[in-house]
Amino acid sequence: MKPTAAILIIGNEILSGTTQDANIAWMGARLNQRGIPLMEVRIVRDDEEAIVQAVNELRKKYKYLFTTGGIGPTHDDITADCVAKAFEAPIGINVEARKRLEEHYASHTVELNEARLRMARIPVGGELINNPVTVAPGFRMENVFVLAGVPKIMQGMFQSVEGLLEGGKPVLSTTVSCNQKEGDIAAALGDLQKQYADIDIGSYPHMDETPSLSLILRGTDEKRLSAAAQKVAEIIRTWGEEPILEDIQQQKAS
Amino acid sequence: MKPTAAILIIGNEILSGTTQDANIAWMGARLNQRGIPLMEVRIVRDDEEAIVQAVNELRKKYKYLFTTGGIGPTHDDITADCVAKAFEAPIGINVEARKRLEEHYASHTVELNEARLRMARIPVGGELINNPVTVAPGFRMENVFVLAGVPKIMQGMFQSVEGLLEGGKPVLSTTVSCNQKEGDIAAALGDLQKQYADIDIGSYPHMDETPSLSLILRGTDEKRLSAAAQKVAEIIRTWGEEPILEDIQQQKAS
Repeated sequence: MKPTAAILIIGNEILSGTTQDANIAWMGARLNQRGIPLMEVRIVRDDEEAIVQAVNELRKKYKYLFTTGGIGPTHDDITADCVAKAFEAPIGINVEARKRLEEHYASHTVELNEARLRMARIPVGGELINNPVTVAPGFRMENVFVLAGVPKIMQGMFQSVEGLLEGGKPVLSTTVSCNQKEGDIAAALGDLQKQYADIDIGSYPHMDETPSLSLILRGTDEKRLSAAAQKVAEIIRTWGEEPILEDIQQQKAS
Repeated sequence: MKPTAAILIIGNEILSGTTQDANIAWMGARLNQRGIPLMEVRIVRDDEEAIVQAVNELRKKYKYLFTTGGIGPTHDDITADCVAKAFEAPIGINVEARKRLEEHYASHTVELNEARLRMARIPVGGELINNPVTVAPGFRMENVFVLAGVPKIMQGMFQSVEGLLEGGKPVLSTTVSCNQKEGDIAAALGDLQKQYADIDIGSYPHMDETPSLSLILRGTDEKRLSAAAQKVAEIIRTWGEEPILEDIQQQKAS
């Protein structure tokens, strides 16, 4: 299977508008750097049926699935059980996960009570993912990586597994900025896209900003990307403006 | 069908990490105010098959579907054609949409060229949605509302159609804040959730912040919500802390 990825975000707080998602952009950029395009994101409620169905659809459709959220100690943290159900795997206390929690809480003189012990429930066959921030681990089941929802913890967990991912060529990008109107250059841009099918050319107008239009080009072949960016610049020059060309770079995680 | 909603976000720029989504939290809060819980969000690429499939799954599953993005003048703006395909409806230039574009561009001495005219392509049976910002309309097909992706334009379009939505009781929320550890109160909170099945009790720890834990309660019955919040406060008091109780309020759009 070609390297592709999906993210499943689990949590009522994102859907209710209480919390602004901060994980998609970060993980999307990070996957791009490894040549693993993020193809789809789903956000669902803390609801067993919705989670199980989404896990099963996405893990079959893409090479990697990352879930975020729902692995804490409270009643609405049901991700581990749902992933077990999706894989039809038994679930129970993982000995190594329990040991890590015991050591962590003992050193902080915090009680490892029944609620906290739930964080050691891992589906049988799951491999632990290190949590460098708050110890309670995530886990991997085949191509599914179960991560925390809190951005700092999610990022720490992602960094501890990203070396395992089989990627493609890193996606490079460059931006051509100008003040032309999108509708004026759209036809020429569409023709160019047909000539450069291997380059993804996106047009992003900004309101109340200068430059008012960003043309973002993405691809894995630096020469082709550079050639396409020059062609975009030529289109803009026919409208009498000298565009701003950015250096070609790997996508940065925000 | 109970009032429920989904959002389909169309655009490579969100998945690549280039653009941080700003529409989910705004629309989620706005729908909550009208008693229409947002049940699911999907983000897909500018890809016909992916868009058509997601439109068809989500419009059947939920009472309302809102799409954002992909209705501009450039080659990657394929949402209108995909929605037509999902409904197996013909698509062509809509006379009223064309008229609005003609008037707008004439007054701005901008040419209504072929690329811009694409923004008047509307599936047969689609009703136009006003765009108070840049004129090019969105449209509604049955329970599917096709909106722009630029936040200001999306918000203007949403406000021009939200009066049409059949909602339920507005969702009210209140927050109880404290510095307790989530794992210490998780068991008592889980018991409380069982007693108050009509109230959604969420636990959100914050890193490096004070208060370090927000317990957010949501529901449509003010008395039940208030009673549940008092019970949460009692749980926290058993740990020797006086929690901060917020007034009950309608969710604000961020």
